Amino acid sequence: MLIVPEREIANLMTREAAFDAIEKVFAAMASGDAYNFPVVREAIGHEDALYGFKGGFDRAGLSLGLKAGGYWPNNLEKRNLINHQSTVFLFDPDTGKVKAMVGGNLLTALRTAAASSVSIKHLARENATVIGMVGAGHQATFQLRAALEQRKFEKVIGWNYHPEMLPNIEKVAHEAGVPFEAVDLPGMTEADVIISITSAFSPSLMADHVSPGTHIACMGTDTKGKQEVEAALLARASVFTDEVAQSVSIGEAQHAIAEGLIKDTDVAQLGAVINGTNPGRTSDHQITLFDGTGVGLQDLAVAAKVVDLAVEQGVAIDVDF
Amino acid sequence: MLIVPEREIANLMTREAAFDAIEKVFAAMASGDAYNFPVVREAIGHEDALYGFKGGFDRAGLSLGLKAGGYWPNNLEKRNLINHQSTVFLFDPDTGKVKAMVGGNLLTALRTAAASSVSIKHLARENATVIGMVGAGHQATFQLRAALEQRKFEKVIGWNYHPEMLPNIEKVAHEAGVPFEAVDLPGMTEADVIISITSAFSPSLMADHVSPGTHIACMGTDTKGKQEVEAALLARASVFTDEVAQSVSIGEAQHAIAEGLIKDTDVAQLGAVINGTNPGRTSDHQITLFDGTGVGLQDLAVAAKVVDLAVEQGVAIDVDF
Repeated sequence: MLIVPEREIANLMTREAAFDAIEKVFAAMASGDAYNFPVVREAIGHEDALYGFKGGFDRAGLSLGLKAGGYWPNNLEKRNLINHQSTVFLFDPDTGKVKAMVGGNLLTALRTAAASSVSIKHLARENATVIGMVGAGHQATFQLRAALEQRKFEKVIGWNYHPEMLPNIEKVAHEAGVPFEAVDLPGMTEADVIISITSAFSPSLMADHVSPGTHIACMGTDTKGKQEVEAALLARASVFTDEVAQSVSIGEAQHAIAEGLIKDTDVAQLGAVINGTNPGRTSDHQITLFDGTGVGLQDLAVAAKVVDLAVEQGVAIDVDF
Repeated sequence: MLIVPEREIANLMTREAAFDAIEKVFAAMASGDAYNFPVVREAIGHEDALYGFKGGFDRAGLSLGLKAGGYWPNNLEKRNLINHQSTVFLFDPDTGKVKAMVGGNLLTALRTAAASSVSIKHLARENATVIGMVGAGHQATFQLRAALEQRKFEKVIGWNYHPEMLPNIEKVAHEAGVPFEAVDLPGMTEADVIISITSAFSPSLMADHVSPGTHIACMGTDTKGKQEVEAALLARASVFTDEVAQSVSIGEAQHAIAEGLIKDTDVAQLGAVINGTNPGRTSDHQITLFDGTGVGLQDLAVAAKVVDLAVEQGVAIDVDF
């Protein structure tokens, strides 16, 4: 079996490779070639940790396995380790034998960034020029860096509950040669594309902060109770997601569903747009919203890709297991 | 992180070590120190395989992780690999980082054998002399070998649907210096202890094949629909299990529950007997029945032990992950 340690991922994985892997697996999910298993997520009662497994099988890409790990909130302070810790395990779907083990920390950041990028490619207006960031934490830098490659953006605007974090994303904008401006939330009406990436439990971005024609990627809500945008915004938007079952239960759509503003059947798979079975954006005035909840198949897809790259570049550790 | 390949397990793990690990973790489950996560089990639609994850956390033993793998029915014929394939992954409960990866095939056989042995230690009559085997496949040899260490058995009797397989268990009996006799199912009335280890979907062992005072370990039923013994036998017996939720839904007790012969509350944890909070056997005429369904914590317990042994003996592979 092959091992790709966390420390190798940054040298191996590219945003392009992550984008391709995520676009393909979203398509496979929508065509029925790939499906996610039920998610296990447990508060284990030790170190306040959340731990679990996200698995799936992609018949098209022949990826089988899981990401295991979770959130250890005391890691950084107590041990100078990052709080999110995960590992991806790939299995041979022909035999059930373990095939590869891959560090999952950076991959999770890259696959989450790739998801909003794929949504921008397929749902944002071609002539989008202003991108707005709601949230400026560590993950926001990944989302913005990937998003800037999808359209000819001329300006980044950003808001964060703690404004002292805005330099995180300002730096990314400047590295891409794009000017940055801090705004208040109503200032988001200037944006053609908005990415929200917070871990909030009440909405920041309200329906009247969003102009017609905007594409919004909500990337922060993956748990019951979390919420980034006003539920009314989903009623105004065409709503897309990675996985409908997650979107309506633990994703951003949970609130609009609970309030009766939209129905399950109003939420479409982004993969169907990629496959051409859903028209996606049909007018320049339409608001499109991608509810990115994060699925195990994304982790398997980027991990499988990184194993290929590690083998090509001779850095995979081969263990006779 | 440490790796213990499948090929090392036979040299490292002993029946005694497996017994101790399983006895401890059953006790931890009953005292509330350890719990199993929801089981993921999927027919993936490829190679007729069943694949999934059994995880848990033991606060007492500080074992966190999962067994991943499943059943690939074409392995043996197509590839000369065993059909059950599994791998155990242990995580550090303080940090969420992966700690060890251990081959799970032989360990699964050993922990399943240890479970019926622990039940015999705590529930069979001290003066038991005849052990009956219902089933004589590969796993039956493990169950019998471990069971023979728990009482001074003077005779092994055995039945199998295909009698040509009986030499499997006859060989184990002779290795232990105990005579063996093939019997028909009514002949099981001679047994003081019975282990059933089949993958049947209808009962073989009927209530009138069992004498008062017998201890029965039903080890084969781990899926909805499987059944080894007549449901009426559970109504006559004091019923114990590894995990009540599994016993009444996918274990041997599912049928007696469905037929209204017993209630959930009639099924007790074997761990409570180990801990002394349940009296277990209280008379020589009582029939005791252990419904061994198999839980992830058993896999973690034996895997954690084998990692310790591998480190002691210098055969763990240390990978800088």
